[in-house]
Amino acid sequence: MPTYQLDRRGKKPLYEYLYECLKNDIRSGVLPGNQRLPSKREMARDHGVAVVTVENAYAQLLAEGYLYTRPRSGFYVTEGLEREGAAAPDRANAGTFGDAAASGQSLAAAQGSDEKQSSGAPSEPAKKKEYFVDFTSGRIHSDAFPYSAWARLMRRVLTDREEDFLVAPPREGVYPLRKAIADYLRDARHLTVSPDRIIVGPGTEYLHSILLRLLGTTDPVAVEDPGYSKIGLLYGSTGRPTIHVKVDREGICVEPLKKNGVKLVHTSPSHHFPTGCVMSAERRKQLLKWAVSENAYIVEDDYDSEFRFSGRPIPTLAESNDTNVIYMNTFTRTLAPSIRIAYMVLPEALMEQYRTILSFYSGAVSSPEQYTLAAFLSEGYYQRHISRMRTFYRTRREQVLEAFSASPLSKYAELSGDSAGLHFLLLIKRKLNDKKFIKDLDNVGIKINPLALYCYNDAKPYAHAFLLGYGALEPERLPEALGRMADMICKQA
Amino acid sequence: MPTYQLDRRGKKPLYEYLYECLKNDIRSGVLPGNQRLPSKREMARDHGVAVVTVENAYAQLLAEGYLYTRPRSGFYVTEGLEREGAAAPDRANAGTFGDAAASGQSLAAAQGSDEKQSSGAPSEPAKKKEYFVDFTSGRIHSDAFPYSAWARLMRRVLTDREEDFLVAPPREGVYPLRKAIADYLRDARHLTVSPDRIIVGPGTEYLHSILLRLLGTTDPVAVEDPGYSKIGLLYGSTGRPTIHVKVDREGICVEPLKKNGVKLVHTSPSHHFPTGCVMSAERRKQLLKWAVSENAYIVEDDYDSEFRFSGRPIPTLAESNDTNVIYMNTFTRTLAPSIRIAYMVLPEALMEQYRTILSFYSGAVSSPEQYTLAAFLSEGYYQRHISRMRTFYRTRREQVLEAFSASPLSKYAELSGDSAGLHFLLLIKRKLNDKKFIKDLDNVGIKINPLALYCYNDAKPYAHAFLLGYGALEPERLPEALGRMADMICKQA
Repeated sequence: MPTYQLDRRGKKPLYEYLYECLKNDIRSGVLPGNQRLPSKREMARDHGVAVVTVENAYAQLLAEGYLYTRPRSGFYVTEGLEREGAAAPDRANAGTFGDAAASGQSLAAAQGSDEKQSSGAPSEPAKKKEYFVDFTSGRIHSDAFPYSAWARLMRRVLTDREEDFLVAPPREGVYPLRKAIADYLRDARHLTVSPDRIIVGPGTEYLHSILLRLLGTTDPVAVEDPGYSKIGLLYGSTGRPTIHVKVDREGICVEPLKKNGVKLVHTSPSHHFPTGCVMSAERRKQLLKWAVSENAYIVEDDYDSEFRFSGRPIPTLAESNDTNVIYMNTFTRTLAPSIRIAYMVLPEALMEQYRTILSFYSGAVSSPEQYTLAAFLSEGYYQRHISRMRTFYRTRREQVLEAFSASPLSKYAELSGDSAGLHFLLLIKRKLNDKKFIKDLDNVGIKINPLALYCYNDAKPYAHAFLLGYGALEPERLPEALGRMADMICKQA
Repeated sequence: MPTYQLDRRGKKPLYEYLYECLKNDIRSGVLPGNQRLPSKREMARDHGVAVVTVENAYAQLLAEGYLYTRPRSGFYVTEGLEREGAAAPDRANAGTFGDAAASGQSLAAAQGSDEKQSSGAPSEPAKKKEYFVDFTSGRIHSDAFPYSAWARLMRRVLTDREEDFLVAPPREGVYPLRKAIADYLRDARHLTVSPDRIIVGPGTEYLHSILLRLLGTTDPVAVEDPGYSKIGLLYGSTGRPTIHVKVDREGICVEPLKKNGVKLVHTSPSHHFPTGCVMSAERRKQLLKWAVSENAYIVEDDYDSEFRFSGRPIPTLAESNDTNVIYMNTFTRTLAPSIRIAYMVLPEALMEQYRTILSFYSGAVSSPEQYTLAAFLSEGYYQRHISRMRTFYRTRREQVLEAFSASPLSKYAELSGDSAGLHFLLLIKRKLNDKKFIKDLDNVGIKINPLALYCYNDAKPYAHAFLLGYGALEPERLPEALGRMADMICKQA
């Protein structure tokens, strides 16, 4: 059993450093499966630290599955965790970036091979490639989540609301949260809705499933093409006819909806994914007219509306029609991918159906989290958080634009989609074999997705276009990364 | 604007008492909609308290939707909240007991008219009847939830795991939680499973939905009759043929499964709901044999296994077959109805299908809560909590049995189902009009459900049987309540 040099810990707390040393030795096989660890007392004595320090380190390893206990016998190393070349402690959780299937619209979520999510817990065998720059990451930057405010509110909620935790949350969400969401929509989106029309759920996926339950089982539904592939997969997996409808410069085309007798269409008018286009006023009118005349529903996915960096906010469809439009949004995108809370605003008729048909449903978001988010919203934390994030991402955008202008890449390509959202479109203006480009970049540590990946029918018009997600970029790596891209394009010429 | 006598607050914190006074006056209409409240400073001065006290009271009212703010103008009373005869502060949240549709098996969840869950937030218009004794409540007793331990672990998790909150939770749940569940199953249920076969979700409903997605869309499925009605509704709502299969004294009958080509059956072998019967060894053998020969699946709902009060623990079906049995359980029942975390153990083949077909799914339980539960389990809090609850409920059971023996009711009825679970069956041995009995009891403040409520086909064999849920009873009211029942029976005779 090694003794660790705890004075090398730098600024880290003792227990954390000890935990990392042990974890590293378990991962590298220095501490093999089923080896018994010294008792907390022995360990503390050998390292000249307090027993509580060892206790904390062991507890953490236990919680993460590195150790197991035998009653009255002590702590043992879990079997089958060793793998060669353990990463340095501070990298232990890298390589899981691609997992950030932000309930809303992670780029990675749509990508076939990257779908294999791993938990981020290193004892799972998945060993992901580490990239120099990953433009497909849906990860957020690491200072973004307001841990301390969230933790404080959570504690207050747990103390003040004891009574509320003895009953199940109502299936549509607790009232204070729905009220806070209604207030937020009024202030931020000029959308006035009653809390009674709001349904809260653990992610947009769940809400889509509910919506589909409320429709007939044979009514055709439609999604955008190109679009957020996950929605198409979700709709298709229910066995309903699912139409993939072309998106042009003005937004989703209305003709195919009419032709196919579609009863529900998913669209993101204020910021289309992945092209970034905003639906034109004319198309909005057409789409709404279609929905009214066909008695159909429009799911307005407003996923990135919080991150609009220039121009005036785009009004919602829901603002002008509250009988055919279902407004949907998520906190997963703006708060943290790990917080699974989304919501939708149902037209009264659908709400009525929900109360009747799905009366047996239970709420699916735990109450403490709902009340915490309610306080987070109503006490102004959320607005401040969004405003901080917007400033951060605006700076990040500018860094990307600057690095791009200064890079040789700007001779061969242009950037578009720069007024909203957390990604740019990179449009290469030279002859290019897209597949080879992606593969060559992968070989030099750069991960990038083609826009074609999000096309269902005809990908041709979207050739030579790529997505540059910048939510979690390290900007100092950009010049090098963009330079490598330029090189690859030159080599192909 | 009234001034409140804050010295009447007893042991309550100042802010809480102030909050209650204001809430009461809003609910009773003393403070009408849109009335502007004094500024925090004025309010503090008028009552001789610190500004922070008023701040806390206002914040709470804001979070609950009683107040709204206008920028730079102050606090206003929300419109439309007044209702006659406001309840006393300490009763404000009563009347929502029936909502406790514990994801697992709340009695109320199955009950038609009680399905209309309200949020418990008093600004929703629902005005529920208050009962002297409510035997249908799925509520848990108020000291049960370990708030402080949970809050402490949550805070630690939020501090220690920052990195983990920047990525979405994996769709099957975070590894430490799945590992902790596997350890728990090994220790508590002698069930050895790999964490890789465990899927975590926000309630059993969600897990059932996933299961159904993995089956063909036309394969017949089966539920128990009588049984937990919600499962039947859920299965039926997907449009699949749903067979309601008779449960006899030995458990669910196997013949109808064969006859109807069933591919998935839901059953609770270790404690059937609502009859409380345990599946016989012979029936287990038959059921497993059927599943193997038909390549069918058994969902083993182990919902109440934690609350077994006498005899040896019932072994799981999953223990003897890991290819046809899906083990399912929930923490909602044992921890608190407000915590929405359940799990299932899938056979390898289904897990493979899950990874392929539903690869686009996101995790639906927020990571902070998953890590908190992981620590709660792996550090022994859960086991201690269960053991405390078991002691509590055992005492409660004995109180029910004693009160029953001492009551005139014992001349006309008997109690059964006394070795497990949180309800008894009351079997009336006199001639009885069940409907009239229930209605008459309702009139004297006693709420009770007939066993027939949980029957789908033939309710006759279950006449004169009623469920006595005792999870949240006030035992000192029992003699009176049982006495009233005896009276009703006599009156009918």
